[in-house]
Amino acid sequence: MKQFFTICTVSVLAGSNLAIGVASEVPPSPNGITFPAGYQDWRVVAVSHRSDNNTLRVIFGNDQAIAAARSGQTNRWPDGAILGKVVWKDGAIPEWPQAQKPDKFVHAEFMFRDSAKYADTGGWGWARWKGPDQKPYGDANVAQECVACHTPVKDNNWVFTRPAPLPPVAK
Amino acid sequence: MKQFFTICTVSVLAGSNLAIGVASEVPPSPNGITFPAGYQDWRVVAVSHRSDNNTLRVIFGNDQAIAAARSGQTNRWPDGAILGKVVWKDGAIPEWPQAQKPDKFVHAEFMFRDSAKYADTGGWGWARWKGPDQKPYGDANVAQECVACHTPVKDNNWVFTRPAPLPPVAK
Repeated sequence: MKQFFTICTVSVLAGSNLAIGVASEVPPSPNGITFPAGYQDWRVVAVSHRSDNNTLRVIFGNDQAIAAARSGQTNRWPDGAILGKVVWKDGAIPEWPQAQKPDKFVHAEFMFRDSAKYADTGGWGWARWKGPDQKPYGDANVAQECVACHTPVKDNNWVFTRPAPLPPVAK
Repeated sequence: MKQFFTICTVSVLAGSNLAIGVASEVPPSPNGITFPAGYQDWRVVAVSHRSDNNTLRVIFGNDQAIAAARSGQTNRWPDGAILGKVVWKDGAIPEWPQAQKPDKFVHAEFMFRDSAKYADTGGWGWARWKGPDQKPYGDANVAQECVACHTPVKDNNWVFTRPAPLPPVAK
């Protein structure tokens, strides 16, 4: 028995040390979805502003999502596409106070398209990480809350975002 | 004289054919600044919304601008940095009408940092291309209009944009 506890203690400590060694890694969502590291470098699908809660947003897409957005394949989006929405509270541009700019970072939330794996939640996996330290949000059933809010856009493949019109990339 | 007209006509037609052949190329600004092809793929510095003229914006940065934004080197921005602002008219998200999303593409406008070359206009080159066909805007003195509007942010290196807070890219 003593040996059992010793082994467990050593394992826990080893795990802690490992965690410290990779402190920049963000934990997965409680539903098991892995944090999409590097989303800050993704390209832009759209932006938005909400007057009801005074927030600004940018909607990023991974490479598959950008290809789909630019070719109009957004209903349905292809498997492998990931959409990421970053939300900030409104601030005012000091020298142009009628303009709203990003103030406090609220959260980053994501939709992961896999029509088979996530068939029970609209063909999307859902996850959110809150605050500047990207703390995983919710519990194992977090997708239920996401799906409930996105139900009005069920016919748009569960996505509020429409890709922003941009001129084609010039050669 | 007839031969002269013939030569001119042939030249104009040749020019037209050439233009059709490279239709994806966007002409330079009237002040000589070259269109920054591919800006649609650049990373995001910030977003903004203007309540005074109902427009949404994304501010892109080239690699030098993104590196500067993420390391806080924005007053002054380094030579080589380019900031690009894309402007859309507000539209409403049909299923969430309190939210504004990009509607009509208005223009893309740019600041090119070169403190020596553009010493007379705040150390920045300025240019704008209008509409979905990216038509060059203004005349050879277009920078004067830009500088006049940006004078309130002279002490912020002539830039209204403050980089949006984003968590560092996780490894």
